[in-house]
Amino acid sequence: MSRLTKLVLDVLKPHQPNSLDFARLLAESAEGMVVHLEMVEMDEKTHSLRLTFTGEHLDFEAIEKAIDEQGASLHSIDVVEYRTTE
Amino acid sequence: MSRLTKLVLDVLKPHQPNSLDFARLLAESAEGMVVHLEMVEMDEKTHSLRLTFTGEHLDFEAIEKAIDEQGASLHSIDVVEYRTTE
Amino acid sequence: MSRLTKLVLDVLKPHQPNSLDFARLLAESAEGMVVHLEMVEMDEKTHSLRLTFTGEHLDFEAIEKAIDEQGASLHSIDVVEYRTTE
Amino acid sequence: MSRLTKLVLDVLKPHQPNSLDFARLLAESAEGMVVHLEMVEMDEKTHSLRLTFTGEHLDFEAIEKAIDEQGASLHSIDVVEYRTTE
Amino acid sequence: MSRLTKLVLDVLKPHQPNSLDFARLLAESAEGMVVHLEMVEMDEKTHSLRLTFTGEHLDFEAIEKAIDEQGASLHSIDVVEYRTTE
Amino acid sequence: MSRLTKLVLDVLKPHQPNSLDFARLLAESAEGMVVHLEMVEMDEKTHSLRLTFTGEHLDFEAIEKAIDEQGASLHSIDVVEYRTTE
Amino acid sequence: MSRLTKLVLDVLKPHQPNSLDFARLLAESAEGMVVHLEMVEMDEKTHSLRLTFTGEHLDFEAIEKAIDEQGASLHSIDVVEYRTTE
Repeated sequence: MSRLTKLVLDVLKPHQPNSLDFARLLAESAEGMVVHLEMVEMDEKTHSLRLTFTGEHLDFEAIEKAIDEQGASLHSIDVVEYRTTE
Repeated sequence: MSRLTKLVLDVLKPHQPNSLDFARLLAESAEGMVVHLEMVEMDEKTHSLRLTFTGEHLDFEAIEKAIDEQGASLHSIDVVEYRTTE
Repeated sequence: MSRLTKLVLDVLKPHQPNSLDFARLLAESAEGMVVHLEMVEMDEKTHSLRLTFTGEHLDFEAIEKAIDEQGASLHSIDVVEYRTTE
Repeated sequence: MSRLTKLVLDVLKPHQPNSLDFARLLAESAEGMVVHLEMVEMDEKTHSLRLTFTGEHLDFEAIEKAIDEQGASLHSIDVVEYRTTE
Repeated sequence: MSRLTKLVLDVLKPHQPNSLDFARLLAESAEGMVVHLEMVEMDEKTHSLRLTFTGEHLDFEAIEKAIDEQGASLHSIDVVEYRTTE
Repeated sequence: MSRLTKLVLDVLKPHQPNSLDFARLLAESAEGMVVHLEMVEMDEKTHSLRLTFTGEHLDFEAIEKAIDEQGASLHSIDVVEYRTTE
Repeated sequence: MSRLTKLVLDVLKPHQPNSLDFARLLAESAEGMVVHLEMVEMDEKTHSLRLTFTGEHLDFEAIEKAIDEQGASLHSIDVVEYRTTE
């Protein structure tokens, strides 16, 4: 059985909600997770963000759903880390 | 339940209060917090600052209020970190 | 007796499956392994990936087989680490 | 209650006292403190210094007073760190 | 009595055997050793490799013999580390 | 009471004594000290050295005297660290 | 009493003995020592080496003698570290 333990996503977000609320809503999409949001670029309409998720059992569907619900879009999956135990 | 544990803000501050008093007033806006202020740029009227807040339960509203009360302005939210426990 | 403990591969992958599913299927090819996938370059048809495998007893044949089964191709073996015990 | 735990100052000092005596006099302005002095630039009349103070309860007024008493001037406050406990 | 504990070699290898088998055969030339192989450059006929060996009692002759047996050639000895005990 | 715990000096030394003897004579000027000498530049007549002294109670006068006695000259004091205890 | 605990030498060596034998012979010149040899440059006749010696009581005369005996020459003393105890 493999567990998703790290995920780095490149996400494009409208100005609202702000980065604070956006990160909180993503965090609340699952338990046992750290959500680290970094503002990469800011232009008139959008924020380009680098989102790093770490945890023991990340739930990608829940994260993807939360991103969509905020009107943001997943631009690319940059890093994925899976672990399988003996 | 998610907790705000790290916040990096880009803030523009008038010369008064000085950086020392400004950081102290921000720190006193909540308990269990480290406020790290870095002077990025200094011009005739304003100081451009990079403020890093770390703690177990950061209170963004209290921080934002304290920034306003000192006549400073929040330019952008650069890093946000939320944690949710199992 | 020598054990394969680290492997870094340069792999070319079609857009489907996405990086998440690709990494998961590779991870499930063997037990006791960490699969770290990094997107190096993305063009119209393919993703160029840097895959780092770490574990106590990596199984190269199983990894190579899993890569082929996803329609991806092994471009080069960049790092190999073997350990032999006294 | 907040505590000042780190302070980085940009200070301009005449050649006398030398950097050694200057750092010692600053250190003796308060207890429980590390004073780290770095020579940034040296010209005919002055030394431009980067002073880092770390401790559990730094006393800015005492530091500022000690700087003045040596005939040096505080050019800018570059880093300030305050901590508040739960 | 001195012990060879680290060795970094610049080695030129034909495409066959591949880097995986090459590293495994080198590792099996002696016990208690880590063999770390890094692909430096790949051209039509050869792979230029940086090989790092670490262990408590490395056996250079055995390593050199294993390199020859695979049809590869030792280009240069880049790092050598010996330890002598009190 | 403040203690001098770190000192970095820029020193100009004639070719004799060599760097080894020079560092040893400086070390023997006081107890409980580490003297780290780095050759920065070597020209026909002099060696330009970066000397780092660390210890619990460095004695600057003894160090300065030992430098003079070897016919070397103190070019600048680059780093000074003092500690005061609660 | 001061102890020589680190030494970095710039040494020029003929091609024979090779770097492996050269480092071993240097290591055997004294006990309780780590000899770390790095090839800096290789030309038709000589190898330019950076030799780092670490230990509790390095013996410079023994090292210098061993270098001479191998037909190599000490180009410069780059780093020296002495320790004196309380």
